[in-house]
Amino acid sequence: MNILAICGSLRKKSTNMGLLRYAQAQAPAGSNITIADLSSVPFFNADLTEKPAAVIELLQQLEKADALIFGCPEYNYSIAPALKNALDWASREPDNKLLSGKAVALMGAGGGMGTSRAQYHLRQVCVYLNLHPLNKPEVFANAFSGAFDADGNLVDEKIQGTINTQLTALIAWAHQLKK
Amino acid sequence: MNILAICGSLRKKSTNMGLLRYAQAQAPAGSNITIADLSSVPFFNADLTEKPAAVIELLQQLEKADALIFGCPEYNYSIAPALKNALDWASREPDNKLLSGKAVALMGAGGGMGTSRAQYHLRQVCVYLNLHPLNKPEVFANAFSGAFDADGNLVDEKIQGTINTQLTALIAWAHQLKK
Amino acid sequence: MNILAICGSLRKKSTNMGLLRYAQAQAPAGSNITIADLSSVPFFNADLTEKPAAVIELLQQLEKADALIFGCPEYNYSIAPALKNALDWASREPDNKLLSGKAVALMGAGGGMGTSRAQYHLRQVCVYLNLHPLNKPEVFANAFSGAFDADGNLVDEKIQGTINTQLTALIAWAHQLKK
Amino acid sequence: MNILAICGSLRKKSTNMGLLRYAQAQAPAGSNITIADLSSVPFFNADLTEKPAAVIELLQQLEKADALIFGCPEYNYSIAPALKNALDWASREPDNKLLSGKAVALMGAGGGMGTSRAQYHLRQVCVYLNLHPLNKPEVFANAFSGAFDADGNLVDEKIQGTINTQLTALIAWAHQLKK
Repeated sequence: MNILAICGSLRKKSTNMGLLRYAQAQAPAGSNITIADLSSVPFFNADLTEKPAAVIELLQQLEKADALIFGCPEYNYSIAPALKNALDWASREPDNKLLSGKAVALMGAGGGMGTSRAQYHLRQVCVYLNLHPLNKPEVFANAFSGAFDADGNLVDEKIQGTINTQLTALIAWAHQLKK
Repeated sequence: MNILAICGSLRKKSTNMGLLRYAQAQAPAGSNITIADLSSVPFFNADLTEKPAAVIELLQQLEKADALIFGCPEYNYSIAPALKNALDWASREPDNKLLSGKAVALMGAGGGMGTSRAQYHLRQVCVYLNLHPLNKPEVFANAFSGAFDADGNLVDEKIQGTINTQLTALIAWAHQLKK
Repeated sequence: MNILAICGSLRKKSTNMGLLRYAQAQAPAGSNITIADLSSVPFFNADLTEKPAAVIELLQQLEKADALIFGCPEYNYSIAPALKNALDWASREPDNKLLSGKAVALMGAGGGMGTSRAQYHLRQVCVYLNLHPLNKPEVFANAFSGAFDADGNLVDEKIQGTINTQLTALIAWAHQLKK
Repeated sequence: MNILAICGSLRKKSTNMGLLRYAQAQAPAGSNITIADLSSVPFFNADLTEKPAAVIELLQQLEKADALIFGCPEYNYSIAPALKNALDWASREPDNKLLSGKAVALMGAGGGMGTSRAQYHLRQVCVYLNLHPLNKPEVFANAFSGAFDADGNLVDEKIQGTINTQLTALIAWAHQLKK
């Protein structure tokens, strides 16, 4: 099972990227997790007549993916533009074929509410994209309470455990949706 | 009264930009409306050590603005990244001084629901930014029913009337918030 | 397959109840649709030491249900209290066993946006309740444009067709979630 | 200044009612806070031809109120039906005259996120009702961490301080909206 992880934060020491790296290292047997690189993906603009190379690579990774993980920061009570923009690009393919019907896990690191406000907005986006986010467990990490080291690596055992549980649930959910 | 209008769509014939152009041409006596140019504003990234020129210009325009208008497209049931990103940049100034306390009008053109789903997300963003969006009138324009010409200009008289009403309300609201 | 339909409006000629009656009459072969009666279900109150009879009946109907339909009016841009209250009662059973994991279809009749604002709130409720609402098709009926007769019966063929499509999708979705 | 407080929880030892009692006791000089009694307010139903006595009393209290406080529990990630229902009743008066234009403060006690999910839904309701909720400070109380005594009284000094700040802001905001 191929899983693609997409992170809304572009900075190097992002704690949301830290969540994704932890998930990647813990990919259950029989699965692998690739982390997309959004650093060169421009804003979607319907006037662009050719897809930039970074977009083409993202779309190819999405095509191969059986399931998705979104690392969802919260900026000003909503979704980080880089993550939303990646989904906007992907949504323009014929019949929404890169996204429609796929299983998704959401995780986020931020203030005391762990990016929940942004995650509920992201769930509404999933309705239109016909993505199926897991209901449970939700992953809400506080980025300012010692859960991450100075490089943004996840060191909190409780959150690590929740992510492991979520990965198992994601794989089961993806299998169920394919039956 | 200086009003800054910001549009979430980057394409040339954007109907959301058409709403803003109409508003600009109808600016009530004693007010002027400037439309921001987001075409060169990059994604916010906390690793950037210097502000790009397009960001500096946007922040200067915001500083001069007494009130704001957001042209709010709906992409996949939520906010267009270019608009959200402009607000994310602006929110990083000390004490949120470029935004806090200002009056806002929201308008959007899109499918049959006129970008309402995106506008409610945008209203949640305004809570954190301490912006004060008008409750009424809401401007929801259907972009696919003859309300715009081929260049994205607003030609529907009913929507034009609603925007005129909204502009009057915005100016009164901005005055009230300054008292 | 047993399907329970729950309506948020209590009035006799409710158009939302009209949607449910239409769905009931169109129940696909091998399924049956029961419409719950909320008229005597009181507000949930943790101080109540015994469940009222109307609540007991609702919970028994939910226990037998393989899938659910929510007739979702929009009151003041959010969910009708009677519908939310029915779900709040149901959520108090051990392990959320009456709701968890079940397939749901949402439909609503109201103003021009067809109760969409309320339906997105209801979808957020479903996350906590571990319900799985269909992403598509969404059913948004305008109650004021001739789609219903004076008794609240659905007479619009296009909306009828969408409901038929949704019922087929609901049954397939419920089967998939049970595998 | 007359302030009416409305609580979404009906149980006697409600922590949300505890927030309102604290606010009531701390009403700033020149203001008084009344707490509405929703225990006998039935579900709104357009078929009812006469307003029940408890509804009439609520509407009279709203008419006298210069500003409002909503004690907002979170049930299953959204608004408590009793609170929403009170607002639905109030919204039916001609020209929405009992609510339109009034200042509001929101506060809530619940799980770790302090009813934030419900409060954002409630803010969307306020858009339609033309209520003006304060942006800041938001009051999110954790009901399970010692902030309340066994009778639901607020004993946490930090949350008490936030409520005092919020009351001062509410009165200033109500004055500003009346100018």
